[in-house]
Amino acid sequence: MLGLMQDRPLLISSLLTHAETYHRENTIVSAPCEGGIVRSSWGETALRARQGAQALARLGVNPGDRVATLAWNTHRHLELYFAVPGMGAVLHTVNPRLFAEQLDYILNHGAAGVLAFDLPFLDLVDSLAPKLTHLRHKVVLTDAAHMPDGRDDLLCYETLLAAESGDLVWPAFDERTASGLCYTSGTTGDPKGVLYSHRSTVLHAFLCCQADGLHLSRADSTLLAVPLFHVNAWGIPYASAMCGAKVVLPGPKLDGQSLYELARAEECTFSLGVPTVWIGLFKYLEDAGIDPALLPFQRLLIGGSAAPRALLQRFHDAGIHAFQAWGMSETSPVATVATLLPHHRELPRDQQIDVLARQGRAMFGVELRIVGEDGADLPHDGSVTGELMVRGPWVTSGYYGGVGGDVLDGEGWFATGDVARIDSEGFVTLTDRSKDVIKSGGEWISSIELENAALGHPAVEAAAVVGVAHERWQERPLMLVIRKPGGSATAQDILDFLAGKVVGWWLPDDVVFVDNLPLTATGKLDKKVLRKQYINHLITAETGA
Amino acid sequence: MLGLMQDRPLLISSLLTHAETYHRENTIVSAPCEGGIVRSSWGETALRARQGAQALARLGVNPGDRVATLAWNTHRHLELYFAVPGMGAVLHTVNPRLFAEQLDYILNHGAAGVLAFDLPFLDLVDSLAPKLTHLRHKVVLTDAAHMPDGRDDLLCYETLLAAESGDLVWPAFDERTASGLCYTSGTTGDPKGVLYSHRSTVLHAFLCCQADGLHLSRADSTLLAVPLFHVNAWGIPYASAMCGAKVVLPGPKLDGQSLYELARAEECTFSLGVPTVWIGLFKYLEDAGIDPALLPFQRLLIGGSAAPRALLQRFHDAGIHAFQAWGMSETSPVATVATLLPHHRELPRDQQIDVLARQGRAMFGVELRIVGEDGADLPHDGSVTGELMVRGPWVTSGYYGGVGGDVLDGEGWFATGDVARIDSEGFVTLTDRSKDVIKSGGEWISSIELENAALGHPAVEAAAVVGVAHERWQERPLMLVIRKPGGSATAQDILDFLAGKVVGWWLPDDVVFVDNLPLTATGKLDKKVLRKQYINHLITAETGA
Repeated sequence: MLGLMQDRPLLISSLLTHAETYHRENTIVSAPCEGGIVRSSWGETALRARQGAQALARLGVNPGDRVATLAWNTHRHLELYFAVPGMGAVLHTVNPRLFAEQLDYILNHGAAGVLAFDLPFLDLVDSLAPKLTHLRHKVVLTDAAHMPDGRDDLLCYETLLAAESGDLVWPAFDERTASGLCYTSGTTGDPKGVLYSHRSTVLHAFLCCQADGLHLSRADSTLLAVPLFHVNAWGIPYASAMCGAKVVLPGPKLDGQSLYELARAEECTFSLGVPTVWIGLFKYLEDAGIDPALLPFQRLLIGGSAAPRALLQRFHDAGIHAFQAWGMSETSPVATVATLLPHHRELPRDQQIDVLARQGRAMFGVELRIVGEDGADLPHDGSVTGELMVRGPWVTSGYYGGVGGDVLDGEGWFATGDVARIDSEGFVTLTDRSKDVIKSGGEWISSIELENAALGHPAVEAAAVVGVAHERWQERPLMLVIRKPGGSATAQDILDFLAGKVVGWWLPDDVVFVDNLPLTATGKLDKKVLRKQYINHLITAETGA
Repeated sequence: MLGLMQDRPLLISSLLTHAETYHRENTIVSAPCEGGIVRSSWGETALRARQGAQALARLGVNPGDRVATLAWNTHRHLELYFAVPGMGAVLHTVNPRLFAEQLDYILNHGAAGVLAFDLPFLDLVDSLAPKLTHLRHKVVLTDAAHMPDGRDDLLCYETLLAAESGDLVWPAFDERTASGLCYTSGTTGDPKGVLYSHRSTVLHAFLCCQADGLHLSRADSTLLAVPLFHVNAWGIPYASAMCGAKVVLPGPKLDGQSLYELARAEECTFSLGVPTVWIGLFKYLEDAGIDPALLPFQRLLIGGSAAPRALLQRFHDAGIHAFQAWGMSETSPVATVATLLPHHRELPRDQQIDVLARQGRAMFGVELRIVGEDGADLPHDGSVTGELMVRGPWVTSGYYGGVGGDVLDGEGWFATGDVARIDSEGFVTLTDRSKDVIKSGGEWISSIELENAALGHPAVEAAAVVGVAHERWQERPLMLVIRKPGGSATAQDILDFLAGKVVGWWLPDDVVFVDNLPLTATGKLDKKVLRKQYINHLITAETGA
């Protein structure tokens, strides 16, 4: 027997309409690529999103069609976040930092007829366009004054909007309709597209607004330091519409100074981004002699990759409640959030930071388990590690176009490729990507824990640990270290420092000092490159000794 | 094109499984009818709910069947909140304070085969049972030691549970499946059943856990002073499972002393209930000479009927953030919540209380409008009043069994029967039930605003305003007042007091002092009775003058 409740779909357009109705005046601040600051509001965003949807329809975009973007965090990109899914089309955000061949592949695979992009990406688009067989329209996210001369092939976003009335009633449709498409930068095989739905997006927004979730609220002014092309900017644009929060969009400038100044000017209470961004912020503050206590944030989410404990510590020293969360493109992305339990509030601050440095606990809707190599369940005892499996209404069921085939097991679980342990309270601690796990004589060594331990050494700026070939143990850990300017630690110093902090047989077989470490297009350590480069390091070393 | 996200239904059983997994140890405190305090946990609640579902299946309960309760707020009733919908059956909570003929009607209409009840309701059940033709099993919510002697017709809840393993996997089914049934105590016609679904219940729980909603969190210890038979206890049991909050269930004792002592003992941070309960609490504190600042609550929701501003003020004087929300059985029930906007935080406290004394703003998912008698939209300008219309995924689409026919208009709006104004920020202020509106010469007078104004007079304990017959104006307001003990105001004193507070033509034509006011079974003023009693009051008075 079915209940007798209204059958109203969960749609992204209703998020925007809610913001327009109840938070009309609250501010959207944007630092677009052409410079300056543009102040608008949820009311204007709603109007311009309707105009955008009308313009896209006029360009021939139909429900189900993809609209691609290569763009920074600006008000115009935010408007497309609502305009495209609102009309029933699919917003395909593309990371402009990817390699050209990845961009080719992703844009062709997504097959958008319209590509909207920021002016600084014009050369990139020109180089890509000849291979984009589906592409019919190129829209520059700028105004007429900034349009390149003599380019009849380009459309101007502001001109398109100005031609429309905004007098549109958002269509209603099945809440399972596709709304967004993000490709994961696959480390093996081609990139794969995760296809979000209106339902998954709205449910995920509820998570972000929960008191024990990200606690996003109307009182927040959120500095969006995670790009709109990075897994829906972690769902914050949609959650912000749900609660009417102020959104501050830094445009292309994610350097420490720009973020600091914008956060101060807009009295940002909350921000979120990957560790690299925050390391850059603290470096700026240090160089400029600015007291971190002047940062206006109350809360700060570090995600995307495991946050060094020292980074969390620096925020807490500045009076900012920094915490971690875990997720991935395939989980919309937020799956776990590190929140203090009531009994943690009694602990000394250092121990609280230990809690917040873990990847957190599953929010309602997300189911987690860890399994061994045989697929059998492993206990949640805080010591056993296994591959993390996830299930829930905002978790992927398969990739766009069927790439990768069936990705769920018989009971609907998705294998994350992350290796983790889960403690009795449900806190997840990631220890590795399954492909990065170091298998030494059949036992697993966690590269992440070695790296985090090394980051506690005062001379270490960055560290990466990879498994490299070893004649006896098949694989042994090798640590690459970037020293801080003026830092003078030797390999033995580092090993001595690590000795009490990890079990003896985990200690790296060697420590190599480097000037930089390779990063992927999304700013994560590219261990594939390191492994390739150093695969014979221990063998050569031994042979050469 | 549909998205590629997992098709996992939103089910009440997943709320409980989440609580069991992540909040296993957190406490459920219960004061059952047989006396004493029972402490259990979300883990035990989950186990016992599974045992309960097994026991109900053994009694022949099938998916879709109704299981009725006549019970106070205890751990056993809470367990049924999960056991019954978890197995796909429908929990039909019945208000034991209703009149016998209403109980007859409701229980027969719901047609539950199993009725679970607290021991104090045995006589009531015995008097009802002969007429309940569908009733097959009567389950007493107690243990073997407290079972009545010589009653082979009764089953013991604890004995039923003890016979079961709890080894049950909750079934999966369509999230639109019916989960709960509550009858509204109709003031016209027969009571009508609102049939909730798993989907509506889970979405409503998300609302309760939002930072800008009820802010329910793991850190809360919630004194559930609203009965479990009153619109799902405003959704708190389900929201508490979602976030793992501690729940404190006061059993049959809702008097001021019991609530105060339980709240103190369990360090309750949050509570919610109707105004009557809180008026009783303050009366106890006053009589006992207890400083209200000793109340442990941080937040307190007053709902069910409009809260007198003076009551909110008393809580705020005690350092407790009391606020209003609005909803009804047909809205699950929470639709609007009075939360301060950032700019309100600058206001003096008195003006903040004015904000919190309104019925609040719609949460995401709830759409509101006000319409005139012709059904046309009225402006949200804070002055025009009209009937409040509501739409959303946790709003009713029709009553159980088709009673009342179509209840939605062509665009899916439900007419609430409440009259309200909505200001430009979206704050709703209820001015009347549409049936209580006083139409004086074609203009509307708000009985609620007159009552609230009168409650500001130091000698007024309670006030009710009804429209009674008037030869010239068709209807004019008559005010009934209960004086405080020792209060000596005259009718003219009250009218003088009101004079500056409402427009002149709203002033009641007479003020009558009474010893008590009739209440409905849910503790609201029964204006139907008052109107009947006083309908000729002004006509008689004039004739007799």
